[in-house]
Amino acid sequence: MTATLPSTLTVRQMAETARRAGRRLGVLPTEQKNAALRDVAASLRAHAPEILAANALDVQAARTAGLNAALVDRLTLTPDRLEGVASDVEHVATLPDPVGETLERATRPNGLHVMKRRVPLGVLGVIYEARPNVTVDVATLAVKSGNAVILRGGRETLHSNAVLVARIGEALAAHGIPAGAVQVITDPDRARMLELLRLDDLVDAIIPRGGAGLHRFCVENATVPVIVGGVGVVQLYLDPSYVQDGAGVRSAVAVVHNSKVQRPSACNALDTLLVTPDSSRAALPDIVRDLLGAGVHVVADDAARTVLHAAGLTVPAAQPADYGTEFLALKLSVRTVDGLDDAMDYIAAHGGHTDAILTRDAQQADAFVAGVDSAAVIVNASTRFNDGGQLGLGAEVAVSTQKLHARGPMALTELTTTKWVVLGDGQVRA
Amino acid sequence: MTATLPSTLTVRQMAETARRAGRRLGVLPTEQKNAALRDVAASLRAHAPEILAANALDVQAARTAGLNAALVDRLTLTPDRLEGVASDVEHVATLPDPVGETLERATRPNGLHVMKRRVPLGVLGVIYEARPNVTVDVATLAVKSGNAVILRGGRETLHSNAVLVARIGEALAAHGIPAGAVQVITDPDRARMLELLRLDDLVDAIIPRGGAGLHRFCVENATVPVIVGGVGVVQLYLDPSYVQDGAGVRSAVAVVHNSKVQRPSACNALDTLLVTPDSSRAALPDIVRDLLGAGVHVVADDAARTVLHAAGLTVPAAQPADYGTEFLALKLSVRTVDGLDDAMDYIAAHGGHTDAILTRDAQQADAFVAGVDSAAVIVNASTRFNDGGQLGLGAEVAVSTQKLHARGPMALTELTTTKWVVLGDGQVRA
Repeated sequence: MTATLPSTLTVRQMAETARRAGRRLGVLPTEQKNAALRDVAASLRAHAPEILAANALDVQAARTAGLNAALVDRLTLTPDRLEGVASDVEHVATLPDPVGETLERATRPNGLHVMKRRVPLGVLGVIYEARPNVTVDVATLAVKSGNAVILRGGRETLHSNAVLVARIGEALAAHGIPAGAVQVITDPDRARMLELLRLDDLVDAIIPRGGAGLHRFCVENATVPVIVGGVGVVQLYLDPSYVQDGAGVRSAVAVVHNSKVQRPSACNALDTLLVTPDSSRAALPDIVRDLLGAGVHVVADDAARTVLHAAGLTVPAAQPADYGTEFLALKLSVRTVDGLDDAMDYIAAHGGHTDAILTRDAQQADAFVAGVDSAAVIVNASTRFNDGGQLGLGAEVAVSTQKLHARGPMALTELTTTKWVVLGDGQVRA
Repeated sequence: MTATLPSTLTVRQMAETARRAGRRLGVLPTEQKNAALRDVAASLRAHAPEILAANALDVQAARTAGLNAALVDRLTLTPDRLEGVASDVEHVATLPDPVGETLERATRPNGLHVMKRRVPLGVLGVIYEARPNVTVDVATLAVKSGNAVILRGGRETLHSNAVLVARIGEALAAHGIPAGAVQVITDPDRARMLELLRLDDLVDAIIPRGGAGLHRFCVENATVPVIVGGVGVVQLYLDPSYVQDGAGVRSAVAVVHNSKVQRPSACNALDTLLVTPDSSRAALPDIVRDLLGAGVHVVADDAARTVLHAAGLTVPAAQPADYGTEFLALKLSVRTVDGLDDAMDYIAAHGGHTDAILTRDAQQADAFVAGVDSAAVIVNASTRFNDGGQLGLGAEVAVSTQKLHARGPMALTELTTTKWVVLGDGQVRA
């Protein structure tokens, strides 16, 4: 068993190797996988100088190529960040193993014992952009859930990824996990990615992690099932019942602030605030004054602008494209609706990711929860809580915005499927 | 609310209508859906003459077009068959409603109550071939699980489907379910199907029901997630431990017979029998003699042919294409393997749907169950038990051969997804 594979393999050969490795990995005892992961963490620490040196090459190349500062920052590993990555690996080793769980069990009238058992998906293809920490993160979660994985990082991280995957492979090999379990496509040509997307006889799922363009490319081109994610518009509806007194207004200001400002680049950051004429008069000036103070670019419809103007606040008129748009930035649009039903119609047309209501009316809250069909429906809290860690999932692999297989934050369980096990004593079908 | 929709709608307009209908259908109480389904059954019975007359037009057109007898038979409704369809609808009304179930529930340290709740997928696109009973079947299961559905049947069933969907729509409308909940694409042009496959902003899942060509067309062309099914190779490994005495041999004969002969056109019918040199000598002549007597075309490798020849049986040599092939007919290939590991390697290369073992060795059975990654792994019973009804699922929507979302027989639950519900009291994220 070698720790690294020849880099001359075609993507199909990589997938065949992954399939064989996955068969072995899929039946390993939990403790063996955990021990391997703890060694991965140890190896990352032991080889920190080598990893940081490889990463420095990537960073330098990115600077030379003129990549923007945000991208260079995401690409950069520091000793602290690498330690964070290593301790995340150790954390995954402590999480429950989803593999082997029996979900359903019955004895049929003919005496057959039937059960539905959780098993790994098999071979994952994960396509992402310039963050080398994702390489370790995804490899770790794949191994823990018994899946082989083929990684395809951005061309900006080639040096970092080569070293990371080699060190991961060595640590896994020491615990009987074949090198083919974690592989990386090092040829940055998009044709290689396309090959991966079309290997539906060998790869069980494609998980893209990146911008809308990457997700669209995968959906348009893949014959392997894709779990689409990462893109979604976020709304919050402010009902008048929530802002009948100063405490309510202060809470609304705090929740909207947190939803928009705490991490504007996140997919669960607020995009559009829906107000009624009443809630607008009661709270919108305070909310917008706070947001402007935090540097948020606020745009609003005419009704809201009139309310704001009366309070001495002037904001630009919203354009049609400001509604139903994911900003991923310090920008917010305000829209005036008639009330709950109108808000829910608006959300049905524009939502699907994270949608929140602030209300003191329990019936309204129930109607909102029942009637809004988004990955997460939130009552009286920040939209930022639609997150694997915040929901208590332990580890987040990706965020799905589709409905098949997984919806919302994906954890280890979402990297599994099931199989039926039927135990008989010679039964035949009548 | 009208019971039928203008037939001039584009597929996109149909999907928009379906989306609106789905929003209403998704929140209906179970009893309202059940009452509507009971009325659908009553309406099918009340309109039997009209339905059978429309079906007769389809049957006559099929005969004129020279369709083969099997296809014409599948297309044909009789009073008995229509009564069977109606009583299946009543049965679905008695099944548990998967919608609204709470799957996970926790209170987070910050006081947020979080839960994962089962909800309908939304809008389904179901594409199938010449069986008008599927129209009613799928419409019924969609309504029960709170989903709107766009049906696209074969061009052979246009008259039958038009009448069936009109009568279904009337019955649903009487219970407040919008006509858009069940729609059928009546334009047989494949371009309409292609339109449906690419409406990923409106349609949540495509479920093809038909041959391999239809599934491949969907996978190649869809941007909507597809649940692929219906295609799979089925193996059975006969261990020597099972056939050490006459009773064992007789049981092996019965299980292989049932697996192959009971319904050879089914996807869970046996394709390849794997024997060892020992199990071959002990049982293969009896098994093959029985199969030949049942009209099965048996082909075998040289080792098995030698064993059969010594017992006075001559069968043709298997060609390479006889392994890893789904026959869907009275044909079986025999292959000699060294033992369990070799059998599992063979299955890993060719299996994935239904794979069985006959063994008296519990350790072997465990190893087979753990190591074979198929939708159903069966110990000491017929492969024909990989079936929704036989596994106790109540109703079978389709059979998935992929791993994402659903694997194996799909029931009502597989037509649902989940959403997170988060209930707070003004919490913001730290």
